Amino acid sequence: METPNAADSTPDDAPESTGIAAQDWAQASAEPQYRAAVIDLLGALAYGELAAFERLAEDAKLAPTIDDKAELAKMASAEFHHFERLRNRIAAIEAEPNEAMEPFAAALDEFHRQTAPSDWLEGLVKAYVGDSIASDFYREVATRLDTDTRDLVLQVLDDTGHASFAVEKVRAAIKADPRVGGRLALWARRLMGEALSQAQRVVADRDALSTMLVGGVADGFDLAEVGRMFSRITEAHTKRMAALGLSA
Amino acid sequence: METPNAADSTPDDAPESTGIAAQDWAQASAEPQYRAAVIDLLGALAYGELAAFERLAEDAKLAPTIDDKAELAKMASAEFHHFERLRNRIAAIEAEPNEAMEPFAAALDEFHRQTAPSDWLEGLVKAYVGDSIASDFYREVATRLDTDTRDLVLQVLDDTGHASFAVEKVRAAIKADPRVGGRLALWARRLMGEALSQAQRVVADRDALSTMLVGGVADGFDLAEVGRMFSRITEAHTKRMAALGLSA
Repeated sequence: METPNAADSTPDDAPESTGIAAQDWAQASAEPQYRAAVIDLLGALAYGELAAFERLAEDAKLAPTIDDKAELAKMASAEFHHFERLRNRIAAIEAEPNEAMEPFAAALDEFHRQTAPSDWLEGLVKAYVGDSIASDFYREVATRLDTDTRDLVLQVLDDTGHASFAVEKVRAAIKADPRVGGRLALWARRLMGEALSQAQRVVADRDALSTMLVGGVADGFDLAEVGRMFSRITEAHTKRMAALGLSA
Repeated sequence: METPNAADSTPDDAPESTGIAAQDWAQASAEPQYRAAVIDLLGALAYGELAAFERLAEDAKLAPTIDDKAELAKMASAEFHHFERLRNRIAAIEAEPNEAMEPFAAALDEFHRQTAPSDWLEGLVKAYVGDSIASDFYREVATRLDTDTRDLVLQVLDDTGHASFAVEKVRAAIKADPRVGGRLALWARRLMGEALSQAQRVVADRDALSTMLVGGVADGFDLAEVGRMFSRITEAHTKRMAALGLSA
Protein backbone atom coordinates (compact mmCIF):
# COMPACT_ATOMS: atom_id res chain seq x y z
CA MET A 1 0.00 0.00 0.00
CA GLU A 2 1.26 3.44 -0.77
CA THR A 3 0.95 6.93 0.52
CA PRO A 4 2.54 9.49 -1.66
CA ASN A 5 0.64 12.13 0.29
CA ALA A 6 1.46 10.89 3.74
CA ALA A 7 2.31 14.41 4.83
CA ASP A 8 -0.96 15.79 3.49
CA SER A 9 -3.06 13.20 5.18
CA THR A 10 -1.54 13.39 8.64
CA PRO A 11 -4.09 15.19 10.75
CA ASP A 12 -2.85 18.57 11.93
CA ASP A 13 -4.87 18.15 15.07
CA ALA A 14 -3.52 14.71 16.01
CA PRO A 15 -4.16 14.22 19.72
CA GLU A 16 -1.31 14.13 22.21
CA SER A 17 -0.24 10.59 22.96
CA THR A 18 -2.19 9.96 26.11
CA GLY A 19 -4.32 7.00 27.09
CA ILE A 20 -4.00 4.01 24.79
CA ALA A 21 -1.73 5.80 22.31
CA ALA A 22 0.86 6.08 25.10
CA GLN A 23 0.57 2.44 26.11
CA ASP A 24 2.17 -0.65 24.62
CA TRP A 25 0.20 -3.70 23.57
CA ALA A 26 0.68 -5.50 26.90
CA GLN A 27 -1.02 -2.67 28.77
CA ALA A 28 -3.63 -1.70 26.18
CA SER A 29 -4.81 -5.23 25.43
CA ALA A 30 -5.95 -5.71 29.02
CA GLU A 31 -9.13 -3.98 27.82
CA PRO A 32 -11.04 -6.79 25.97
CA GLN A 33 -12.94 -4.43 23.68
CA TYR A 34 -9.71 -2.74 22.56
CA ARG A 35 -8.09 -6.13 21.97
CA ALA A 36 -11.05 -7.23 19.80
CA ALA A 37 -10.93 -3.98 17.81
CA VAL A 38 -7.20 -4.39 17.08
CA ILE A 39 -7.67 -8.00 15.95
CA ASP A 40 -10.38 -6.76 13.60
CA LEU A 41 -8.13 -4.02 12.31
CA LEU A 42 -5.17 -6.36 11.72
CA GLY A 43 -7.47 -8.93 10.11
CA ALA A 44 -8.90 -6.34 7.72
CA LEU A 45 -5.43 -5.03 6.90
CA ALA A 46 -4.01 -8.55 6.38
CA TYR A 47 -6.76 -9.60 4.04
CA GLY A 48 -6.42 -6.29 2.25
CA GLU A 49 -2.73 -7.00 1.62
CA LEU A 50 -3.49 -10.49 0.33
CA ALA A 51 -6.17 -9.05 -1.97
CA ALA A 52 -3.71 -6.36 -3.10
CA PHE A 53 -1.19 -9.08 -3.92
CA GLU A 54 -3.79 -10.79 -6.11
CA ARG A 55 -4.87 -7.60 -7.78
CA LEU A 56 -1.32 -6.49 -8.62
CA ALA A 57 -0.45 -9.95 -9.92
CA GLU A 58 -3.57 -9.81 -12.05
CA ASP A 59 -2.63 -6.37 -13.36
CA ALA A 60 0.83 -7.71 -14.20
CA LYS A 61 -0.84 -9.79 -16.89
CA LEU A 62 -2.07 -6.60 -18.57
CA ALA A 63 1.39 -5.03 -18.56
CA PRO A 64 2.53 -3.87 -21.99
CA THR A 65 6.22 -4.73 -21.48
CA ILE A 66 8.28 -7.26 -19.52
CA ASP A 67 9.69 -4.39 -17.43
CA ASP A 68 6.21 -3.23 -16.45
CA LYS A 69 5.25 -6.80 -15.66
CA ALA A 70 8.30 -7.28 -13.46
CA GLU A 71 7.62 -3.97 -11.69
CA LEU A 72 4.09 -5.04 -10.77
CA ALA A 73 5.23 -8.50 -9.75
CA LYS A 74 7.74 -6.84 -7.42
CA MET A 75 5.04 -4.75 -5.77
CA ALA A 76 2.75 -7.76 -5.47
CA SER A 77 5.54 -9.63 -3.76
CA ALA A 78 6.08 -6.72 -1.34
CA GLU A 79 2.37 -6.77 -0.46
CA PHE A 80 2.65 -10.47 0.23
CA HIS A 81 5.48 -9.88 2.69
CA HIS A 82 3.34 -7.27 4.46
CA PHE A 83 0.57 -9.83 4.64
CA GLU A 84 2.96 -12.32 6.25
CA ARG A 85 3.99 -9.82 8.93
CA LEU A 86 0.38 -9.03 9.80
CA ARG A 87 -0.61 -12.68 9.89
CA ASN A 88 2.36 -13.48 12.14
CA ARG A 89 1.41 -10.62 14.41
CA ILE A 90 -2.17 -11.83 14.72
CA ALA A 91 -0.88 -15.28 15.67
CA ALA A 92 1.62 -13.74 18.11
CA ILE A 93 -1.16 -12.00 20.03
CA GLU A 94 -2.90 -15.37 20.25
CA ALA A 95 -5.70 -14.84 17.82
CA GLU A 96 -6.46 -17.07 14.84
CA PRO A 97 -5.37 -15.27 11.64
CA ASN A 98 -8.02 -16.83 9.38
CA GLU A 99 -10.79 -16.03 11.84
CA ALA A 100 -9.53 -12.47 12.07
CA MET A 101 -9.47 -12.05 8.27
CA GLU A 102 -12.64 -13.92 7.41
CA PRO A 103 -15.13 -11.15 8.32
CA PHE A 104 -13.48 -8.82 5.79
CA ALA A 105 -13.01 -11.25 2.93
CA ALA A 106 -16.49 -10.85 1.46
CA ALA A 107 -16.41 -7.04 1.35
CA LEU A 108 -12.89 -6.91 -0.12
CA ASP A 109 -13.55 -9.67 -2.64
CA GLU A 110 -16.79 -7.98 -3.66
CA PHE A 111 -15.02 -4.66 -4.08
CA HIS A 112 -12.48 -6.29 -6.40
CA ARG A 113 -15.18 -8.15 -8.32
CA GLN A 114 -17.17 -4.97 -8.85
CA THR A 115 -14.12 -3.04 -10.01
CA ALA A 116 -12.14 -5.41 -12.23
CA PRO A 117 -10.01 -3.15 -14.45
CA SER A 118 -10.58 -3.59 -18.16
CA ASP A 119 -7.09 -2.50 -19.13
CA TRP A 120 -3.61 -1.68 -17.87
CA LEU A 121 -4.33 2.00 -17.12
CA GLU A 122 -7.52 1.25 -15.20
CA GLY A 123 -5.52 -1.26 -13.16
CA LEU A 124 -2.87 1.34 -12.35
CA VAL A 125 -5.46 3.96 -11.36
CA LYS A 126 -7.29 1.46 -9.20
CA ALA A 127 -4.17 0.36 -7.37
CA TYR A 128 -3.10 3.94 -6.84
CA VAL A 129 -6.48 5.31 -5.73
CA GLY A 130 -7.44 2.28 -3.65
CA ASP A 131 -4.15 1.88 -1.86
CA SER A 132 -3.84 5.59 -1.17
CA ILE A 133 -7.28 5.85 0.41
CA ALA A 134 -6.77 2.69 2.45
CA SER A 135 -3.40 3.95 3.53
CA ASP A 136 -4.74 7.37 4.56
CA PHE A 137 -7.45 5.68 6.59
CA TYR A 138 -5.07 3.34 8.42
CA ARG A 139 -2.67 6.20 9.18
CA GLU A 140 -5.52 8.15 10.75
CA VAL A 141 -6.47 5.16 12.85
CA ALA A 142 -2.84 4.42 13.72
CA THR A 143 -2.48 7.60 15.76
CA ARG A 144 -5.05 6.14 18.18
CA LEU A 145 -3.41 2.74 18.58
CA ASP A 146 -1.04 1.38 21.20
CA THR A 147 2.64 1.86 20.34
CA ASP A 148 3.34 -1.75 19.23
CA THR A 149 0.35 -2.02 16.93
CA ARG A 150 0.97 1.46 15.56
CA ASP A 151 4.60 0.64 14.65
CA LEU A 152 3.53 -2.45 12.74
CA VAL A 153 0.69 -0.69 10.91
CA LEU A 154 2.95 2.16 9.81
CA GLN A 155 5.62 -0.29 8.62
CA VAL A 156 3.29 -2.29 6.40
CA LEU A 157 1.88 0.92 4.92
CA ASP A 158 5.33 1.85 3.66
CA ASP A 159 5.31 2.86 0.06
CA THR A 160 6.11 -0.11 -2.18
CA GLY A 161 6.96 2.28 -5.01
CA HIS A 162 3.65 1.85 -6.77
CA ALA A 163 2.49 5.42 -6.39
CA SER A 164 5.20 7.15 -8.40
CA PHE A 165 5.17 4.34 -10.95
CA ALA A 166 1.40 4.70 -11.48
CA VAL A 167 1.49 8.50 -11.61
CA GLU A 168 4.24 8.49 -14.21
CA LYS A 169 2.53 5.93 -16.46
CA VAL A 170 -0.95 7.48 -16.23
CA ARG A 171 0.32 11.01 -16.87
CA ALA A 172 2.21 9.83 -19.92
CA ALA A 173 -0.89 8.07 -21.28
CA ILE A 174 -3.06 11.18 -20.82
CA LYS A 175 -0.41 13.31 -22.47
CA ALA A 176 -0.38 10.96 -25.46
CA ASP A 177 -4.18 10.93 -25.69
CA PRO A 178 -6.12 13.49 -23.61
CA ARG A 179 -9.43 11.59 -24.03
CA VAL A 180 -7.97 8.90 -21.78
CA GLY A 181 -8.20 11.43 -18.92
CA GLY A 182 -12.00 11.64 -19.08
CA ARG A 183 -12.45 7.91 -19.07
CA LEU A 184 -10.05 7.43 -16.14
CA ALA A 185 -11.66 10.24 -14.13
CA LEU A 186 -15.03 8.45 -14.38
CA TRP A 187 -13.33 5.21 -13.41
CA ALA A 188 -11.77 6.81 -10.31
CA ARG A 189 -15.18 8.11 -9.22
CA ARG A 190 -16.69 4.66 -9.61
CA LEU A 191 -13.87 3.20 -7.50
CA MET A 192 -14.47 5.76 -4.75
CA GLY A 193 -18.21 5.01 -4.72
CA GLU A 194 -17.72 1.26 -4.54
CA ALA A 195 -15.06 1.60 -1.82
CA LEU A 196 -17.40 3.71 0.34
CA SER A 197 -20.24 1.28 -0.14
CA GLN A 198 -18.12 -1.70 0.96
CA ALA A 199 -16.68 0.31 3.87
CA GLN A 200 -20.21 1.01 5.12
CA ARG A 201 -20.97 -2.70 4.99
CA VAL A 202 -17.92 -3.47 7.13
CA VAL A 203 -18.73 -0.74 9.64
CA ALA A 204 -22.30 -2.04 9.96
CA ASP A 205 -21.05 -5.60 10.55
CA ARG A 206 -18.14 -5.16 12.94
CA ASP A 207 -19.09 -3.75 16.29
CA ALA A 208 -15.72 -3.74 18.01
CA LEU A 209 -13.99 -1.98 15.14
CA SER A 210 -16.79 0.54 14.68
CA THR A 211 -16.96 1.32 18.36
CA MET A 212 -13.25 2.08 18.39
CA LEU A 213 -13.61 4.32 15.37
CA VAL A 214 -16.49 6.35 16.74
CA GLY A 215 -15.19 6.82 20.20
CA GLY A 216 -16.08 4.04 22.60
CA VAL A 217 -12.62 2.60 23.02
CA ALA A 218 -9.05 3.70 22.44
CA ASP A 219 -8.58 7.44 22.42
CA GLY A 220 -11.68 7.42 20.34
CA PHE A 221 -12.78 9.54 17.51
CA ASP A 222 -16.06 11.22 18.25
CA LEU A 223 -18.51 11.55 15.40
CA ALA A 224 -17.38 15.06 14.52
CA GLU A 225 -13.81 13.80 14.38
CA VAL A 226 -14.86 10.97 12.03
CA GLY A 227 -16.39 13.61 9.77
CA ARG A 228 -13.13 15.58 9.77
CA MET A 229 -11.20 12.42 9.04
CA PHE A 230 -13.34 11.72 5.99
CA SER A 231 -12.90 15.23 4.69
CA ARG A 232 -9.12 14.96 5.08
CA ILE A 233 -9.16 11.67 3.16
CA THR A 234 -11.37 13.16 0.45
CA GLU A 235 -9.12 16.21 0.10
CA ALA A 236 -6.06 14.02 -0.24
CA HIS A 237 -7.89 12.00 -2.90
CA THR A 238 -8.71 15.17 -4.85
CA LYS A 239 -5.05 16.23 -4.73
CA ARG A 240 -3.94 12.84 -5.96
CA MET A 241 -6.40 12.96 -8.84
CA ALA A 242 -5.01 16.35 -9.81
CA ALA A 243 -1.47 14.92 -9.68
CA LEU A 244 -2.62 12.23 -12.10
CA GLY A 245 -4.04 14.89 -14.39
CA LEU A 246 -7.64 13.92 -13.62
CA SER A 247 -10.51 15.90 -12.14
CA ALA A 248 -11.86 14.11 -9.08
CA MET B 1 9.99 -24.51 -9.39
CA GLU B 2 10.07 -27.87 -7.63
CA THR B 3 11.76 -31.19 -7.92
CA PRO B 4 10.43 -33.74 -5.54
CA ASN B 5 12.15 -36.37 -7.65
CA ALA B 6 15.47 -34.65 -7.99
CA ALA B 7 17.27 -37.85 -7.02
CA ASP B 8 15.34 -39.86 -9.63
CA SER B 9 16.07 -37.43 -12.39
CA THR B 10 19.79 -37.05 -11.82
CA PRO B 11 21.43 -38.94 -14.65
CA ASP B 12 23.33 -42.01 -13.42
CA ASP B 13 25.77 -41.51 -16.22
CA ALA B 14 26.54 -37.86 -15.51
CA PRO B 15 29.84 -37.03 -17.19
CA GLU B 16 32.92 -36.28 -15.14
CA SER B 17 33.39 -32.57 -14.66
CA THR B 18 35.82 -31.86 -17.42
CA GLY B 19 35.79 -29.17 -20.06
CA ILE B 20 33.25 -26.42 -19.46
CA ALA B 21 31.69 -28.11 -16.44
CA ALA B 22 35.05 -27.72 -14.65
CA GLN B 23 35.43 -24.05 -15.62
CA ASP B 24 33.98 -20.96 -14.02
CA TRP B 25 32.06 -18.33 -15.97
CA ALA B 26 35.11 -16.15 -16.61
CA GLN B 27 36.88 -18.99 -18.43
CA ALA B 28 33.87 -20.59 -20.12
CA SER B 29 32.37 -17.37 -21.45
CA ALA B 30 35.45 -16.68 -23.56
CA GLU B 31 33.71 -18.95 -26.10
CA PRO B 32 31.09 -16.67 -27.73
CA GLN B 33 28.74 -19.50 -28.66
CA TYR B 34 28.73 -20.80 -25.08
CA ARG B 35 28.10 -17.30 -23.76
CA ALA B 36 25.11 -16.86 -26.13
CA ALA B 37 23.69 -20.24 -25.12
CA VAL B 38 23.87 -19.38 -21.40
CA ILE B 39 22.19 -16.01 -21.94
CA ASP B 40 19.42 -17.87 -23.78
CA LEU B 41 19.13 -20.37 -20.96
CA LEU B 42 18.99 -17.70 -18.24
CA GLY B 43 16.51 -15.66 -20.30
CA ALA B 44 14.21 -18.66 -20.71
CA LEU B 45 14.49 -19.53 -17.05
CA ALA B 46 13.86 -15.93 -15.93
CA TYR B 47 10.77 -15.51 -18.06
CA GLY B 48 9.62 -18.93 -16.88
CA GLU B 49 9.83 -17.76 -13.26
CA LEU B 50 7.94 -14.56 -14.03
CA ALA B 51 5.26 -16.60 -15.81
CA ALA B 52 5.18 -19.02 -12.86
CA PHE B 53 4.64 -16.06 -10.53
CA GLU B 54 1.65 -14.99 -12.61
CA ARG B 55 0.23 -18.47 -12.85
CA LEU B 56 0.49 -19.14 -9.12
CA ALA B 57 -1.02 -15.76 -8.31
CA GLU B 58 -3.83 -16.55 -10.71
CA ASP B 59 -4.38 -19.94 -9.09
CA ALA B 60 -4.49 -18.24 -5.69
CA LYS B 61 -7.78 -16.70 -6.79
CA LEU B 62 -9.27 -20.19 -7.18
CA ALA B 63 -8.16 -21.26 -3.69
CA PRO B 64 -10.99 -22.60 -1.56
CA THR B 65 -9.68 -21.20 1.75
CA ILE B 66 -7.63 -18.22 2.93
CA ASP B 67 -4.88 -20.62 4.02
CA ASP B 68 -4.65 -22.14 0.54
CA LYS B 69 -4.66 -18.66 -0.97
CA ALA B 70 -1.83 -17.53 1.31
CA GLU B 71 0.16 -20.69 0.55
CA LEU B 72 0.00 -20.03 -3.20
CA ALA B 73 0.78 -16.35 -2.75
CA LYS B 74 3.88 -17.38 -0.79
CA MET B 75 5.06 -19.66 -3.60
CA ALA B 76 4.36 -16.98 -6.19
CA SER B 77 6.44 -14.55 -4.19
CA ALA B 78 9.30 -17.11 -4.00
CA GLU B 79 9.19 -17.48 -7.81
CA PHE B 80 9.40 -13.72 -8.13
CA HIS B 81 12.56 -13.65 -6.00
CA HIS B 82 14.06 -16.35 -8.24
CA PHE B 83 13.17 -14.19 -11.22
CA GLU B 84 14.98 -11.23 -9.64
CA ARG B 85 18.16 -13.27 -9.11
CA LEU B 86 18.17 -14.47 -12.71
CA ARG B 87 17.51 -11.00 -14.08
CA ASN B 88 20.31 -9.58 -11.93
CA ARG B 89 22.65 -12.30 -13.14
CA ILE B 90 21.86 -11.58 -16.79
CA ALA B 91 22.62 -7.91 -16.17
CA ALA B 92 25.80 -8.81 -14.26
CA ILE B 93 27.18 -10.72 -17.26
CA GLU B 94 26.49 -7.64 -19.35
CA ALA B 95 23.52 -8.81 -21.32
CA GLU B 96 20.18 -7.01 -21.50
CA PRO B 97 17.63 -8.97 -19.40
CA ASN B 98 14.58 -8.04 -21.50
CA GLU B 99 16.33 -8.96 -24.71
CA ALA B 100 17.37 -12.26 -23.17
CA MET B 101 13.80 -13.05 -22.05
CA GLU B 102 11.93 -11.77 -25.06
CA PRO B 103 12.56 -14.76 -27.39
CA PHE B 104 10.88 -17.09 -24.88
CA ALA B 105 7.92 -14.92 -23.91
CA ALA B 106 5.68 -15.96 -26.80
CA ALA B 107 6.13 -19.71 -26.28
CA LEU B 108 5.63 -19.49 -22.51
CA ASP B 109 2.66 -17.13 -22.78
CA GLU B 110 1.10 -19.36 -25.40
CA PHE B 111 1.61 -22.43 -23.23
CA HIS B 112 -0.20 -20.72 -20.36
CA ARG B 113 -2.97 -19.46 -22.64
CA GLN B 114 -3.55 -22.94 -24.04
CA THR B 115 -3.60 -24.51 -20.60
CA ALA B 116 -5.57 -22.14 -18.38
CA PRO B 117 -6.85 -24.28 -15.49
CA SER B 118 -10.61 -24.31 -15.09
CA ASP B 119 -10.49 -25.00 -11.36
CA TRP B 120 -8.29 -25.18 -8.29
CA LEU B 121 -7.24 -28.83 -8.78
CA GLU B 122 -6.32 -28.34 -12.43
CA GLY B 123 -4.21 -25.37 -11.33
CA LEU B 124 -2.39 -27.47 -8.73
CA VAL B 125 -1.74 -30.31 -11.18
CA LYS B 126 -0.49 -27.89 -13.80
CA ALA B 127 1.91 -26.16 -11.43
CA TYR B 128 3.18 -29.48 -10.14
CA VAL B 129 3.58 -31.19 -13.51
CA GLY B 130 4.92 -28.15 -15.32
CA ASP B 131 7.40 -27.08 -12.69
CA SER B 132 8.65 -30.61 -12.17
CA ILE B 133 9.33 -31.20 -15.85
CA ALA B 134 10.99 -27.82 -16.26
CA SER B 135 13.05 -28.45 -13.18
CA ASP B 136 14.15 -31.92 -14.36
CA PHE B 137 15.18 -30.42 -17.68
CA TYR B 138 17.21 -27.58 -16.15
CA ARG B 139 18.94 -29.96 -13.75
CA GLU B 140 20.00 -32.15 -16.67
CA VAL B 141 21.34 -29.11 -18.47
CA ALA B 142 22.98 -27.77 -15.31
CA THR B 143 25.48 -30.65 -15.17
CA ARG B 144 26.92 -29.33 -18.45
CA LEU B 145 27.26 -25.71 -17.37
CA ASP B 146 30.17 -23.75 -15.97
CA THR B 147 30.34 -23.78 -12.16
CA ASP B 148 28.97 -20.25 -11.59
CA THR B 149 25.96 -20.64 -13.88
CA ARG B 150 25.29 -24.13 -12.51
CA ASP B 151 25.22 -22.89 -8.90
CA LEU B 152 22.69 -20.20 -9.75
CA VAL B 153 20.45 -22.52 -11.77
CA LEU B 154 20.38 -25.12 -9.00
CA GLN B 155 19.59 -22.45 -6.41
CA VAL B 156 16.59 -21.03 -8.26
CA LEU B 157 15.26 -24.55 -8.83
CA ASP B 158 15.07 -25.10 -5.08
CA ASP B 159 11.74 -26.51 -4.01
CA THR B 160 9.40 -23.70 -3.01
CA GLY B 161 7.22 -26.22 -1.17
CA HIS B 162 4.67 -26.44 -3.93
CA ALA B 163 5.23 -30.11 -4.75
CA SER B 164 4.23 -31.62 -1.43
CA PHE B 165 1.38 -29.13 -1.09
CA ALA B 166 -0.03 -30.07 -4.52
CA VAL B 167 0.40 -33.81 -3.97
CA GLU B 168 -1.39 -33.68 -0.64
CA LYS B 169 -4.34 -31.63 -1.96
CA VAL B 170 -4.78 -33.64 -5.16
CA ARG B 171 -4.59 -37.01 -3.40
CA ALA B 172 -7.20 -35.89 -0.89
CA ALA B 173 -9.52 -34.73 -3.68
CA ILE B 174 -9.21 -38.05 -5.54
CA LYS B 175 -9.83 -39.95 -2.32
CA ALA B 176 -12.99 -37.93 -1.75
CA ASP B 177 -14.19 -38.45 -5.33
CA PRO B 178 -12.33 -41.04 -7.46
CA ARG B 179 -13.84 -39.69 -10.70
CA VAL B 180 -11.67 -36.61 -10.24
CA GLY B 181 -8.64 -38.82 -10.94
CA GLY B 182 -9.73 -39.61 -14.51
CA ARG B 183 -10.35 -36.00 -15.33
CA LEU B 184 -6.99 -34.87 -13.90
CA ALA B 185 -5.08 -37.65 -15.68
CA LEU B 186 -6.44 -36.41 -19.02
CA TRP B 187 -5.53 -32.89 -18.02
CA ALA B 188 -1.93 -33.89 -17.19
CA ARG B 189 -1.59 -35.57 -20.61
CA ARG B 190 -2.83 -32.42 -22.30
CA LEU B 191 -0.27 -30.34 -20.35
CA MET B 192 2.57 -32.66 -21.37
CA GLY B 193 1.53 -32.47 -25.04
CA GLU B 194 1.32 -28.69 -25.03
CA ALA B 195 4.65 -28.36 -23.18
CA LEU B 196 6.42 -30.54 -25.76
CA SER B 197 4.90 -28.61 -28.63
CA GLN B 198 6.08 -25.26 -27.22
CA ALA B 199 9.51 -26.72 -26.40
CA GLN B 200 9.92 -27.80 -30.02
CA ARG B 201 9.07 -24.29 -31.12
CA VAL B 202 11.79 -22.85 -28.86
CA VAL B 203 14.37 -25.39 -30.03
CA ALA B 204 13.60 -24.60 -33.66
CA ASP B 205 13.98 -20.85 -33.01
CA ARG B 206 17.05 -20.63 -30.85
CA ASP B 207 20.23 -21.81 -32.48
CA ALA B 208 22.71 -21.17 -29.70
CA LEU B 209 20.64 -22.96 -27.09
CA SER B 210 19.84 -25.89 -29.35
CA THR B 211 23.43 -26.29 -30.42
CA MET B 212 24.51 -26.49 -26.79
CA LEU B 213 21.82 -29.08 -26.09
CA VAL B 214 22.69 -31.35 -28.98
CA GLY B 215 26.39 -31.26 -28.62
CA GLY B 216 28.09 -28.42 -30.43
CA VAL B 217 29.19 -26.45 -27.41
CA ALA B 218 29.66 -27.10 -23.73
CA ASP B 219 30.32 -30.70 -22.82
CA GLY B 220 27.55 -31.34 -25.25
CA PHE B 221 24.83 -33.84 -25.29
CA ASP B 222 24.95 -35.93 -28.42
CA LEU B 223 21.64 -36.91 -29.96
CA ALA B 224 21.57 -40.28 -28.22
CA GLU B 225 22.14 -38.53 -24.93
CA VAL B 226 19.26 -36.14 -25.64
CA GLY B 227 17.07 -39.22 -26.18
CA ARG B 228 18.15 -40.67 -22.85
CA MET B 229 17.51 -37.35 -21.15
CA PHE B 230 13.94 -37.29 -22.47
CA SER B 231 13.30 -40.81 -21.31
CA ARG B 232 14.59 -39.98 -17.82
CA ILE B 233 12.29 -36.93 -17.72
CA THR B 234 9.33 -38.98 -18.95
CA GLU B 235 9.98 -41.70 -16.37
CA ALA B 236 10.13 -39.14 -13.58
CA HIS B 237 6.86 -37.69 -14.86
CA THR B 238 5.21 -41.14 -14.76
CA LYS B 239 6.38 -41.65 -11.18
CA ARG B 240 5.02 -38.27 -10.16
CA MET B 241 1.65 -39.03 -11.74
CA ALA B 242 1.53 -42.27 -9.77
CA ALA B 243 2.36 -40.35 -6.58
CA LEU B 244 -0.60 -38.12 -7.33
CA GLY B 245 -2.81 -41.17 -7.77
CA LEU B 246 -3.11 -40.65 -11.56
CA SER B 247 -2.15 -42.87 -14.46
CA ALA B 248 0.20 -40.99 -16.79
